[in-house]
Amino acid sequence: MRSVLVAGIGSTSFGCHADIALETLAVRAADAAIRESGIDRREIGALYLGNFVAGALSGQEILAGLVGDQLGLQQVPCTKVEGACASGGIAFRHAWLAVASGWCDVALAVGAEKMTHADNAATTAALNCAMDNRSDGLSGLTFPGFFGLVWRSYADRYGASRAQVSAVVRKNKANGLLNPLAQMGAIIGEDEIIQSPLICDPLRRFDCCPVSDGAAAVLLVAADRRSDLAAVPVEVMTSVQTRGSPRIAGHIDLCSFQATADAAQRAYASAGITPQNVDLVELHDCFSIAEIVDSEDLGLIPRGQGAAWAAEERTAVGGTIPINPSGGLLAKGHPVGATGLGQIYEVVRQLRGEHANQVRGAAIGLTHNLGGAGVACTVNILKRCDV
Amino acid sequence: MRSVLVAGIGSTSFGCHADIALETLAVRAADAAIRESGIDRREIGALYLGNFVAGALSGQEILAGLVGDQLGLQQVPCTKVEGACASGGIAFRHAWLAVASGWCDVALAVGAEKMTHADNAATTAALNCAMDNRSDGLSGLTFPGFFGLVWRSYADRYGASRAQVSAVVRKNKANGLLNPLAQMGAIIGEDEIIQSPLICDPLRRFDCCPVSDGAAAVLLVAADRRSDLAAVPVEVMTSVQTRGSPRIAGHIDLCSFQATADAAQRAYASAGITPQNVDLVELHDCFSIAEIVDSEDLGLIPRGQGAAWAAEERTAVGGTIPINPSGGLLAKGHPVGATGLGQIYEVVRQLRGEHANQVRGAAIGLTHNLGGAGVACTVNILKRCDV
Repeated sequence: MRSVLVAGIGSTSFGCHADIALETLAVRAADAAIRESGIDRREIGALYLGNFVAGALSGQEILAGLVGDQLGLQQVPCTKVEGACASGGIAFRHAWLAVASGWCDVALAVGAEKMTHADNAATTAALNCAMDNRSDGLSGLTFPGFFGLVWRSYADRYGASRAQVSAVVRKNKANGLLNPLAQMGAIIGEDEIIQSPLICDPLRRFDCCPVSDGAAAVLLVAADRRSDLAAVPVEVMTSVQTRGSPRIAGHIDLCSFQATADAAQRAYASAGITPQNVDLVELHDCFSIAEIVDSEDLGLIPRGQGAAWAAEERTAVGGTIPINPSGGLLAKGHPVGATGLGQIYEVVRQLRGEHANQVRGAAIGLTHNLGGAGVACTVNILKRCDV
Repeated sequence: MRSVLVAGIGSTSFGCHADIALETLAVRAADAAIRESGIDRREIGALYLGNFVAGALSGQEILAGLVGDQLGLQQVPCTKVEGACASGGIAFRHAWLAVASGWCDVALAVGAEKMTHADNAATTAALNCAMDNRSDGLSGLTFPGFFGLVWRSYADRYGASRAQVSAVVRKNKANGLLNPLAQMGAIIGEDEIIQSPLICDPLRRFDCCPVSDGAAAVLLVAADRRSDLAAVPVEVMTSVQTRGSPRIAGHIDLCSFQATADAAQRAYASAGITPQNVDLVELHDCFSIAEIVDSEDLGLIPRGQGAAWAAEERTAVGGTIPINPSGGLLAKGHPVGATGLGQIYEVVRQLRGEHANQVRGAAIGLTHNLGGAGVACTVNILKRCDV
């Protein structure tokens, strides 16, 4: 495998883009990434697009081809990939594989989703396309229900309190306030959280990420093109994709997702680092409790201590391991297919030292994208080129 | 790129599988491919699944993960790819890339679709996800409408007659009668065709492929595993994927699909052969006229002569270039995401010399899978290992 660099990044804001078509969001993010890189778009040899629900919610597939067409990528293979909420991470990994394996020198990964136009019932039905609908789905389970069970299971085992879990919400909402791309940054207190509507006990509204529109894109090049780049490059140390169980009964317990734990273990081994070498993390906090479980699965925090670390502000910027300085899914938003690439966008800005919520001296960053009830996971590790 | 072999193939029949879940169809095809190969499934390093409309028609995504889970593929990255009707070909190409580029030694490609459970309006809406719905789709265009325009355009330029186009239908229906997996093989005459209901002038019902359920799978291995294989292996000479225009206005004319012409040119160059070296072809005859246009785009028949060659039986088994000895989409059926892998299945059986409608001495076979209004295309060339 060859060394691969992030040559350019682009993103729309995450939120409601009622008047902008899904493809247009994707094209704007991709155009920004290409322009920033200084690479001629005619050199792009492959396009991967991550999207989850455009078929179900917008009646539009062939998105990779539509976006490649609007970008003017002549004859380039354009492929949509899907792995529920991990679709963006899977797009990134395939663009990375395309360059790392040597079958092209330049590859573009784009993620895009448009969901705010649909009503709640349609949105819930579309998101439930990520359930195993012949087992968990048949029982009436939705994702807030699933992560409510995760929380109950975690609290039963480790005794995490409501206030500890709220610390995740408060941190990410506050981080989001510093992110110009974020949908729902805010300074909120414990009272507001516990007075927000109960969605699925114990999850309240502030424990859940919003429904979002948005797009993000990353242009990758072989490392030998470094001298041609206009923006500060960042090295991709590794990109790992794993499969876990698509259903509750397939998990050993609900305090851990095997797909995350395995992806992290492989990623650290492949990059030749330990979790202690990681300076910041953008991880998949679709619900507050998910951040706690994910941070333990990633080996960043000892088992059962994720909630306590959040409450002790050890996961804030300036803490032991800054988690989701972007605001994460809870505050930045979760345009599903775009999320994994939005995470890369945030980490690249951190490693360039240009983030609005900068982690000082950040040299190594990790992203974590999880799909469905743990069925698909990607973990990526990126590094500053000068360290 | 390393040399890659087809180690095993599997397929359900194409047709109506009302009582069998989509994932079950996929698992049956994949299990057959794995069992036949003699390769331990624990060696599989990547799974690619081609599917088009399960989100829109069945409310089920994460199919790659569901199938990987049911196959018992622990921790293997499982990725759904989508490029409308070319989804199966794209899954094959990515499994090939995974092995050819050296990042795994064994990869599985599966294609699956389930459509017969939906009513006509839902099916048409789902298939129209392959239109550019902000241009052609807005005008009310459907795929029969699009290929009706292709036929008119072709007939205006080259003077093809109804009877010549009917020769494609009669050949493929008769071929399908010999294929135990085919949905709609038949011996039919010109009268039956021209008396069948008009779908979209000049297309009649017999000019259109049926709506189908089905799945097909191919297991690929690095060539150095040849001595471990239980079934007769077939070599993949090349696999090419291209992008064309997603909409009418993007085509220079409707008598040709640039994505096919480009993919074919690159495939021949990459395999080091000419169209004259190809012994049989499985191509994308979603409509009768498509077979004629495709066969010219693939360089198999001179421009404007495709209809005449069909009428002269030069594309029958025993003719100059046998096209769709399986019955093609018109008679074998078109479970969209499975079609591209079903084509590989048929060509492998031909190259092993075990096909029920055998092309004598077949050494090199080509498959062609086209998505949407020409937005995505794959062309694969396979070869007997002993020539």
